[in-house]
Amino acid sequence: MTGLSGSGKTTIAKELEKRLRERGLKVEILDGDIVRTNLSKGLGFSKEDRDTNISRIGFVANLLSRNGVVAITAAISPYRSVRDAVREQTERFVEVFVDAPLEVCESRDVKGMYAKARAGEIKGFTGIDDPYEEPLAPEVVCKTAAETVSESASKILAALERGGYIPSSAEQAAAV
Amino acid sequence: MTGLSGSGKTTIAKELEKRLRERGLKVEILDGDIVRTNLSKGLGFSKEDRDTNISRIGFVANLLSRNGVVAITAAISPYRSVRDAVREQTERFVEVFVDAPLEVCESRDVKGMYAKARAGEIKGFTGIDDPYEEPLAPEVVCKTAAETVSESASKILAALERGGYIPSSAEQAAAV
Repeated sequence: MTGLSGSGKTTIAKELEKRLRERGLKVEILDGDIVRTNLSKGLGFSKEDRDTNISRIGFVANLLSRNGVVAITAAISPYRSVRDAVREQTERFVEVFVDAPLEVCESRDVKGMYAKARAGEIKGFTGIDDPYEEPLAPEVVCKTAAETVSESASKILAALERGGYIPSSAEQAAAV
Repeated sequence: MTGLSGSGKTTIAKELEKRLRERGLKVEILDGDIVRTNLSKGLGFSKEDRDTNISRIGFVANLLSRNGVVAITAAISPYRSVRDAVREQTERFVEVFVDAPLEVCESRDVKGMYAKARAGEIKGFTGIDDPYEEPLAPEVVCKTAAETVSESASKILAALERGGYIPSSAEQAAAV
């Protein structure tokens, strides 16, 4: 998943995780903050460091997904080129654009980060004084200002089924 | 696995991977060099950077192993404290000391690194001018100067079985 801070990536990730586990699938969420602590401590928020962070997440997600674990990544991932590079290197990949208008993300301001960015206390904040490059051809777009979390998760599940990455609910029912 | 450069970690890892795959198990090798490229680019060989590298490997190995993938790690991992920290954080953990005398590792000098370290071209090389802290209570010790690769792999397989981390060969035979 890619999208602005506050767009709803983590919320969707948790709902998606629940729904996948209900189907008996293995799931790991690689959340931006957890990854920053465990894989990317020391990296900042320059383009180079952000790209390195996303490459690492992609490396780990590929290790998991090629072993049958659904790896849900939830980092802002603002740059198109590194997202496309990860897509190339990943055997099983679905790009989800978590698309909410900046005004909506800013009004949510879950972590109080937008206020700090507007006050100039944080520099290089995506959407304020750092770029966000929207995906050109994501497999899924979740318009989180206009749809429920459940709807967003359902769209992603459908894309995973279409790609043949998880069994369809019909196949699952038949197997039971 | 922990041990000096040239002690045989990667060779054992590959043999172990083959034997585990023959049993139908999922396996990933997190080799020191691959990890340095994909997870730890920018880190050097100070104690702090080495510890960070090992923590990251441990984090990824735990993600894999708790999802049923055998994660074989093969980095020098010279410091006891971070190895023990990873052990604490990992649900399913077996420590293998790949134990070959420095003279043997140096005479093998697969990558030509010992020669460079002796010539002073590389600083902080484990075993030459950087410490290696032997494990105090590893689950397995592989004396690679005195045993075959196949024997080393068999000892590790037996430890994995004893720990209940993989089915025993007897259980597997019964299931067929």
